[in-house]
Amino acid sequence: MKTRAAVAWGPGKPLTIEEVDLQLPKKGEVLVRIVATGVCHTDAYTLSGDDPEGIFPAILGHEGAGIVEAVGEGVTSLAVGDHVIPLYTAECRECKFCKSGKTNLCQAVRATQGKGLMPDGTTRFSKDGKPIYHYMGCSTFAEHTVVPEISLAKIDPKAPLEKVCLLGCGVTTGIGAVHNTAKVKAGDTVAVFGLGGIGLAVIIGAVQAKAGRIIAIDLNEDKFEIAKKLGATDFVNPAKFDKPIQEVIVDMTDGGVDFSFECIGNVKVMRAALECCHKGWGESVIIGVAGAGQEISTRPFQLVTGRVWRGSAFGGVRGRTELPGYVNRFMNDEIDLDTFITHTMPLEKINEAFDLMHEGKSIRSVIHY
Amino acid sequence: MKTRAAVAWGPGKPLTIEEVDLQLPKKGEVLVRIVATGVCHTDAYTLSGDDPEGIFPAILGHEGAGIVEAVGEGVTSLAVGDHVIPLYTAECRECKFCKSGKTNLCQAVRATQGKGLMPDGTTRFSKDGKPIYHYMGCSTFAEHTVVPEISLAKIDPKAPLEKVCLLGCGVTTGIGAVHNTAKVKAGDTVAVFGLGGIGLAVIIGAVQAKAGRIIAIDLNEDKFEIAKKLGATDFVNPAKFDKPIQEVIVDMTDGGVDFSFECIGNVKVMRAALECCHKGWGESVIIGVAGAGQEISTRPFQLVTGRVWRGSAFGGVRGRTELPGYVNRFMNDEIDLDTFITHTMPLEKINEAFDLMHEGKSIRSVIHY
Repeated sequence: MKTRAAVAWGPGKPLTIEEVDLQLPKKGEVLVRIVATGVCHTDAYTLSGDDPEGIFPAILGHEGAGIVEAVGEGVTSLAVGDHVIPLYTAECRECKFCKSGKTNLCQAVRATQGKGLMPDGTTRFSKDGKPIYHYMGCSTFAEHTVVPEISLAKIDPKAPLEKVCLLGCGVTTGIGAVHNTAKVKAGDTVAVFGLGGIGLAVIIGAVQAKAGRIIAIDLNEDKFEIAKKLGATDFVNPAKFDKPIQEVIVDMTDGGVDFSFECIGNVKVMRAALECCHKGWGESVIIGVAGAGQEISTRPFQLVTGRVWRGSAFGGVRGRTELPGYVNRFMNDEIDLDTFITHTMPLEKINEAFDLMHEGKSIRSVIHY
Repeated sequence: MKTRAAVAWGPGKPLTIEEVDLQLPKKGEVLVRIVATGVCHTDAYTLSGDDPEGIFPAILGHEGAGIVEAVGEGVTSLAVGDHVIPLYTAECRECKFCKSGKTNLCQAVRATQGKGLMPDGTTRFSKDGKPIYHYMGCSTFAEHTVVPEISLAKIDPKAPLEKVCLLGCGVTTGIGAVHNTAKVKAGDTVAVFGLGGIGLAVIIGAVQAKAGRIIAIDLNEDKFEIAKKLGATDFVNPAKFDKPIQEVIVDMTDGGVDFSFECIGNVKVMRAALECCHKGWGESVIIGVAGAGQEISTRPFQLVTGRVWRGSAFGGVRGRTELPGYVNRFMNDEIDLDTFITHTMPLEKINEAFDLMHEGKSIRSVIHY
């Protein structure tokens, strides 16, 4: 079949809207009509060429929502007409990782997904007979995409797809990191480094967890208003202090925070986030994705004196099992997605979404097909 | 009063046996006659001059056991004749840290202890009218010492002090890190980096926790026999492989270990210990003390993909509350201290204990007063 897609031809090049060829789903695969997709920093990271796993030409996009249009052989958990959110972290429920009960990092399709391929080692997308690679197992910058069955969360069909698409990545990542990774408890003090989509979602999660104090940290004070609206209680611009930000936070919290979250991808901020944690028990969660080859560092004394350094991917959320509940919580007004959607536009304007992001003018642009 | 002590006069200098002056205990303090003390790497670290907190002249030693000879004003939990183990990590039960229930890092006497002083800011030891500093709040390289009441664990008087003194530091640190910090469960795979006193104690703890596989790692293969005796199941000499040790461990464990313990104080080994942990859930615990100013580093991807980096001090053990139980477990033959005691000697030969340690010939030398 033919479908319309925004194709990334190479690092740093604008996407172009193309009619591409799409093979029907094979065994264990599903054809999804994407109704809407967010444009996330990770798409921009790969498009920039900085992502060492980046492969071109590719159809990017991994924060979408859509409707099943066809299922391949052997697909049993989904049927035509089901509403779904594609998962860049699959959930096969059969691999060592899924069975462990300790992690959401299903490895069933990891190897091929990382190479831009479907599990059988080929692509479904092509143009003029040449393959176009998949991206993060999702490729939501196409009106139709093919995704493994185990990479789709079936959600309430009443949910507005043009909003809940955001639960496919950033918002769930932030909220999940609070509940699944950090396990923030009522009364805890939380520091959030970086007030982009993920940092704002961390604030939502911290409010849900009844955190006692939520310290929002960003160099761009324009972000403080929205952080406040979501429930942050303190606002810190590191540029306004002449000492390291970790010292500022330790001083304002009588020894440090119970939990900190790095939502930027800056290894120096990751260190500050760890070191602003309270001696004896403070835990820091890295959510942001650092540039290739960059390293975090600290003195081991920071850990020996009781701080814990963690990370979180997709908020520790097992997509097929837990994501439908996130959609339900949005429907129950427990997750404010509207605040995240600063722009909407048709696929043809997708390059503007990247521009808005780079200029710091958007939280999320959502593409409506 | 007068007492006999081994005094450290300065970095790198041999200890000399001296008759020193010791003031009787003041308010909240206790006079302890030390019956035996182990000689630990931390004593050697401070004596070497590498410890940035090292202060001289001082009476080192922090792994002792003794009998209360006098109590100061207001002391209620201890009486003359009680058998005790001095604690370099106090337990006041009143500070924010003790009350948190989350950490053993009581801060009640931390500031003065770090300066070699008693809580009132003075020393009890002196010679010719000049102060001699305390060390880690213990100073067990003296036949008599004065210690805060909150820095003493009262133990079963039937316990042999010349053995259970080792529970004052290394053995408890290793066992406690397994139970309190890592929380190893039955069937878990464990890697132990460094087979000194702490690493061997980690093996004891892992056996107690019914770990399924205990991988003992050291450059000195002479240590493997004792590790095997204590219950280690696999033995790895990193020098025998031409790839990084973390890769070796990942390969031999189908993806990595559930828990690793760094028991050396080498920041490169700390990185290897983290990176040999299983993706998704493996946790690494730093126990070793690194040199001043040294830093650990890794790619943040290691944490984002589910590994956790922790540290442990005194095994997370609250000394007054938990240490008596360790003594009881030794009495019940659940902790093999005899294996650790490779040498015994009188105080006059204490410099030989340091030599044996530096030459890698001892696990622990115990001084009998």
